[in-house]
Amino acid sequence: MVATSSGAARPDEIRRHNLALMLTHVHRDGALSRAELTQRLGLSRSTVKSLVDDLTQLGLVADVVPSAGQGGSTGVGRPSHVVAPHRGGPFVLAVDIGVEETTFAAVGLGGDVYARQTRATARIQEPGAVVDAVADWVVRSGGDGCDWGDGWLAGVGISVPGTVDATSGRVGIAPNLDWHDVPLGALLADRLPAAVPAAVGNDADLAVLAEHARGSARGSADVVYLMVRVGLGAGIIAAGLPLRGHSGSSGEIGHNQLDPAGPPCHCGKRGCAETFIGDGALLALAGHPGPVSDAAVASVFDQARDGDERALSAIRTVAGHLGHVIGDLVNTLDPERVVVGGSLTGLLDVARPELEAALANATFAVLGRRADLRAGALGDDAALLGAAEAAFASLLADPVGARA
Amino acid sequence: MVATSSGAARPDEIRRHNLALMLTHVHRDGALSRAELTQRLGLSRSTVKSLVDDLTQLGLVADVVPSAGQGGSTGVGRPSHVVAPHRGGPFVLAVDIGVEETTFAAVGLGGDVYARQTRATARIQEPGAVVDAVADWVVRSGGDGCDWGDGWLAGVGISVPGTVDATSGRVGIAPNLDWHDVPLGALLADRLPAAVPAAVGNDADLAVLAEHARGSARGSADVVYLMVRVGLGAGIIAAGLPLRGHSGSSGEIGHNQLDPAGPPCHCGKRGCAETFIGDGALLALAGHPGPVSDAAVASVFDQARDGDERALSAIRTVAGHLGHVIGDLVNTLDPERVVVGGSLTGLLDVARPELEAALANATFAVLGRRADLRAGALGDDAALLGAAEAAFASLLADPVGARA
Repeated sequence: MVATSSGAARPDEIRRHNLALMLTHVHRDGALSRAELTQRLGLSRSTVKSLVDDLTQLGLVADVVPSAGQGGSTGVGRPSHVVAPHRGGPFVLAVDIGVEETTFAAVGLGGDVYARQTRATARIQEPGAVVDAVADWVVRSGGDGCDWGDGWLAGVGISVPGTVDATSGRVGIAPNLDWHDVPLGALLADRLPAAVPAAVGNDADLAVLAEHARGSARGSADVVYLMVRVGLGAGIIAAGLPLRGHSGSSGEIGHNQLDPAGPPCHCGKRGCAETFIGDGALLALAGHPGPVSDAAVASVFDQARDGDERALSAIRTVAGHLGHVIGDLVNTLDPERVVVGGSLTGLLDVARPELEAALANATFAVLGRRADLRAGALGDDAALLGAAEAAFASLLADPVGARA
Repeated sequence: MVATSSGAARPDEIRRHNLALMLTHVHRDGALSRAELTQRLGLSRSTVKSLVDDLTQLGLVADVVPSAGQGGSTGVGRPSHVVAPHRGGPFVLAVDIGVEETTFAAVGLGGDVYARQTRATARIQEPGAVVDAVADWVVRSGGDGCDWGDGWLAGVGISVPGTVDATSGRVGIAPNLDWHDVPLGALLADRLPAAVPAAVGNDADLAVLAEHARGSARGSADVVYLMVRVGLGAGIIAAGLPLRGHSGSSGEIGHNQLDPAGPPCHCGKRGCAETFIGDGALLALAGHPGPVSDAAVASVFDQARDGDERALSAIRTVAGHLGHVIGDLVNTLDPERVVVGGSLTGLLDVARPELEAALANATFAVLGRRADLRAGALGDDAALLGAAEAAFASLLADPVGARA
């Protein structure tokens, strides 16, 4: 935590570290009393007071009296003040580039979505058009009637349905956007003010951040998140930290081969996971005539809930294959929790027994372990909110440096 | 690094942190000059001097003049002193329980093996017998002529070919020892002096620690180590830290299913990785008549090197399957380096092209990434030396506390 590049600790970094830690608690959990902060940080009351004063002066937190129903009040006597994210303070621009729709949102410290807008991805699909849209939004921020008062932009985060080197922000391949080797991070940096960092990430990698901070993976240090949309990817948290891999492209499990005799895959192999799991596989099994779309997938789930046998059977079949994939991941990573998100979030409602049976078959049985299997709590917003988390990362890591 | 249980930093912990960091550098790299330590730690010369003095007084390091060929001397003028592990200081007892042989070794700070002894595992296979043997060794330590002078025992580390909860030291299952649910950590704690911590780990998890500290994975933060012995397991380093999983049983990939139409596995499924990869699979392919043994596997490699077509073909076939398994791991974890250890360490000499072709086929091709594939440098000693690393962990994490 407190470390120079060499890992050695120096006294002058302690205060900055503790400010970062306090701000992270307030960002994660919203309003907290000074007593709660004192307990969580294990510091003296006077140190906590001084840290709160610093964060207040930096415009990051505010002393507020919570409204009824919020924490901080004892119900008797005068209400206790709490330390909360400053609503006129920092916000970020989060962008989720989906295959059909791209969503832009202004998200405040603490995770509230102040404003959001959705556009058809087809209209802004070129990387340059995405960068233009982000730059436009940044110019307009604070001026178009959104509820961010006198707030200031602390960062931009972008979720891409493809492989991303999170360090450079370079997109390797995003097949459904037809993007190849796009230096999105550098393109953004050219257009954004120097004080506004831009983070680019893979959708599953960002979605697991959001589910970990505010959703179904909260409180668990070892998580695998399955993002099923057109394709299949995984976001991984290990020992409380995102597992990115050496080149930032961990979790690209869509082409792990489940069956050498399986259907041909567009990648040239046979029986890749994506030939069995994903929107296209589900629609084909269900006999849906139309092209792959979110609405088409939703209609198959609706039919299954209405008792349609073919739709139900299609979902159960996909659930079985997903159980195999999750089993391999459980054997490899030993997560505490497995979260299913994306377009197949509803799969646990419709076909949990089939998924659990396949998972039990696929995991190394003698271990007797059962991963805690949950549906994503943030639904389609997981990648968007994860992009916001990534955009806040610089500020949260060093509030003093980010404001300097 | 410097952190209370809550993660907040306090000034009084900085010195202990920096002592731990310095001792870790000396343990990892052996003799280092004060100038090197100053540079690595990013601290002032006077702080480094004071830290060296503390570690010297704790009996952990010593000021020595390196002999010719070692670092520290400039070759002109009087030789520079270096800070080295204190040879009369701490050592650990490392134990590698293999299927055929169990090896005991006394390993000094810095990784030198002072003494070692091998026994047939069959003679000490019961957990109680292992604990007795460890307790005997501890009683005798310092007294049987080994070269550890007036050293003191800093810990015990035990490698088990099975699933282990590294926190409690409980062995879940070690099929080839016929151990089920053995509280080895607790059994050891009952017999060892309170000041001697015992660490128990899975062989692959420990082997990757050793290869990372001193072998083929040195310098890489993202590593997958494949341990092929009778069975198949993986040890994983992610972002520089061991990936253990929630219950300490990550890397149990032997029963990931490669082919639903594959050979029946003793676990009840078909086509598990262990039906294609491992000593038994290799011997069956090679038509070797005898039971599974290290010598039998070695003989197949010898035959292949002598040009025997059937032996060569068997190794190439296993290499192809191993490429599939490694490909799935590369897709999932995106390691920088993949190390093959255990009985199939020689596989890269004999069948690297087949392994690389299968790996290229199995990895998500458009990423264009190539994992750096290496044979283990520590051979059969990897798990033993990893057990020593685990045994030193308490001392390295807090030298002051461990000596108190």
